[in-house]
Amino acid sequence: MTKLIRSWVDSANAPDTDFPLNNLPCGVFSLEGDEPRCGVAIGAMIADVAALEEAGLIDLAGGPVFDVPFWNELMELGPEAWATFRARMVELLAEGSDWRGEVEPHLVPQDAVELHLPFLVSEYTDFYAGKNHAFNVGTMFRGPENALPPNWLSIPIGYNGRASSVVVSGTPVRRPWGQLKAPDAELPVFAPCRRFDFELELGAVVGQPSDGMVGVAEAEAMIFGYVLLNDWSARDIQAWEYQPLGPFQAKATATTISPWIVMTAALAEFRVPTPPRDRPLLPYLREPGPLNLDLSLEAALTPEGGRETVIARTNARELYYSAAQQLCHHTTSGCPMNVGDLLGSGTISGETKDSRGSLLELSWGGKEPLEIVPGVTRSFMEDGDTLILRGHAQGDGYRIGFGDCTGQVLPAAGLPDWAKE
Amino acid sequence: MTKLIRSWVDSANAPDTDFPLNNLPCGVFSLEGDEPRCGVAIGAMIADVAALEEAGLIDLAGGPVFDVPFWNELMELGPEAWATFRARMVELLAEGSDWRGEVEPHLVPQDAVELHLPFLVSEYTDFYAGKNHAFNVGTMFRGPENALPPNWLSIPIGYNGRASSVVVSGTPVRRPWGQLKAPDAELPVFAPCRRFDFELELGAVVGQPSDGMVGVAEAEAMIFGYVLLNDWSARDIQAWEYQPLGPFQAKATATTISPWIVMTAALAEFRVPTPPRDRPLLPYLREPGPLNLDLSLEAALTPEGGRETVIARTNARELYYSAAQQLCHHTTSGCPMNVGDLLGSGTISGETKDSRGSLLELSWGGKEPLEIVPGVTRSFMEDGDTLILRGHAQGDGYRIGFGDCTGQVLPAAGLPDWAKE
Repeated sequence: MTKLIRSWVDSANAPDTDFPLNNLPCGVFSLEGDEPRCGVAIGAMIADVAALEEAGLIDLAGGPVFDVPFWNELMELGPEAWATFRARMVELLAEGSDWRGEVEPHLVPQDAVELHLPFLVSEYTDFYAGKNHAFNVGTMFRGPENALPPNWLSIPIGYNGRASSVVVSGTPVRRPWGQLKAPDAELPVFAPCRRFDFELELGAVVGQPSDGMVGVAEAEAMIFGYVLLNDWSARDIQAWEYQPLGPFQAKATATTISPWIVMTAALAEFRVPTPPRDRPLLPYLREPGPLNLDLSLEAALTPEGGRETVIARTNARELYYSAAQQLCHHTTSGCPMNVGDLLGSGTISGETKDSRGSLLELSWGGKEPLEIVPGVTRSFMEDGDTLILRGHAQGDGYRIGFGDCTGQVLPAAGLPDWAKE
Repeated sequence: MTKLIRSWVDSANAPDTDFPLNNLPCGVFSLEGDEPRCGVAIGAMIADVAALEEAGLIDLAGGPVFDVPFWNELMELGPEAWATFRARMVELLAEGSDWRGEVEPHLVPQDAVELHLPFLVSEYTDFYAGKNHAFNVGTMFRGPENALPPNWLSIPIGYNGRASSVVVSGTPVRRPWGQLKAPDAELPVFAPCRRFDFELELGAVVGQPSDGMVGVAEAEAMIFGYVLLNDWSARDIQAWEYQPLGPFQAKATATTISPWIVMTAALAEFRVPTPPRDRPLLPYLREPGPLNLDLSLEAALTPEGGRETVIARTNARELYYSAAQQLCHHTTSGCPMNVGDLLGSGTISGETKDSRGSLLELSWGGKEPLEIVPGVTRSFMEDGDTLILRGHAQGDGYRIGFGDCTGQVLPAAGLPDWAKE
């Protein structure tokens, strides 16, 4: 396994930073009063790649790539340019670099900036590729015998989400209104969601367009990178609305992603196989090699004014279908995929109770409220709660991380007059 | 009711043209070898609004609006600009206009152009707002007693579709591959769709962004216009994939829209109430007045080398939920809506057998193949078939139409090597 690539940015050499030189994740930041611009996290700093490009220290396309505050233009250039970009950043930032003097003025401390969405989300698809999650949810609703839907072991089940609802870490999330129907009620009411939840997911960022049906190996090469993703979910809205056409408003309030896209290349060494197949896949979905990622993941909850408690620890290797398999399946119908498409993995839960990636599972549908600190329990998210996702791959003396993916739940808005009786 | 507004473009005064001066629908066209540009249909001609703007005959924003080949920029300017634009086009094109000499050089015959997507589709949502369709489909799958899902009379049920799959009329549509499972088979196969279908729908084009939850009246004012919409559907792919998260690849091959957006203002006089409520709606969904549209709709099928047969005639007034109600519901969760969002109505079927807006219903799931001409039947679309949607509102001596919305089904692509056993 590759060792830490040492940088002249000291903080990038710490074993517990998310951002060693091996990582080089892509984000968009702004200093107070300034316009957002592209940057790469390095230790506790951000390398302002827009400024480096302006200074002639990066030249990828014979013209500007970072003159816009999103990474889609680099994605469009394709995998060779992605590799060139990484190699150049290593040259500039490595210990002993000849360019230190020229680069150093373009470093900004992370604690001085605001972070923005790192890319323009073209369309957003959310999969359901975690088997333990699907099994847990199915058990709650249909019992353990019929927990997995019959198609689940054949298809990476997914649905289209709403790209306009994707927000960057740190954006508050307002509790939604919706139609709720109590199990014993005949008719629904219009009320604020009572079972608001998070979902711990990994998001894959599509960096190249498709041209017809795409195989798993080709799909893998199209994935620019990964983000942590919290698919906020209104369980009670979903329960009433989702038959027969799937979740809609239950998933449309917000989806929070980490501020940093970790490029696929930074995770190459952390490939692991998907779990054993319960039954063989159709040939088109078979993997050319290990495509899952060994990423330690955790979810933590902080009540307003309280302290943080980690409520779940799991790993992305639990996914039954890799992002490449999801993307391949996505194209079978001829569906055109584009630069900037975001694929959520679905909730990643482990087999144990403390590795479940949603409150729905952790509190077993609210029947077993989770004690987060003595005397404080949660069945679902309460107003003021902040939910934090973290994740990293563990290298030899370094880690590749995403930064925190956080969101605080705000109380529901007041009911507008036109919606009153 | 308003009379025909006579134009100096003779063909616009014919009682059976889709494009009298009362209509002024928005499209994008190109002459051979030229770049696409915005135009308005007038009789058998197109007024090149990009050229009219360049010539100083249209000035909406003190700067160019039509320097791009899509109508999103006019949408962004808002309802006042939409009205100003229409009023100016009437001035320019009306009988006796002072500007005839200046405008006439910027008219292009429709039969000399290629038509393109009239707007950039931001996101695409498909509703299920036709009660007869929902009842027919439910009856086929669950019997007439349980035909309508329990939520159907409370919620404008919808799901997110795939904007990248929206194509303009005339674009061929290739039969998709997908996972198919026969009712008596244990496992699926990967094969070309065998039950490929059309759906006759009306599409609403959102012309203004939302800011939080939007009421029905406000939603109505945000709708820039309407298109005809054919939501191509792979029934066999859908049957196997759609539980529990809804249709996905079954709806992702293509959605064909008419080349012309008919502006809401052109349809103002053709408002009719939605059908009687089977039970009262929640207050937030109640209508401030008649919001449905009295639009005669038809679907016709032409086998390759054969002649056209109208296979269904229906009316948009059959919709149980108007586009404004759909849009209002879409925002309840806080989901941000944007300029260029497209809302499909869901299949519009009448109560009679010959008014059903899909082959699934017309052939009753393939059990009663439809005879289109003596000896020629269809259960679902066959390769080479062309499906045509048409629609118009009938005024006093004129009609407001959309132009044909057509698509020909091409045979499935060959199976790539990587997908073979």
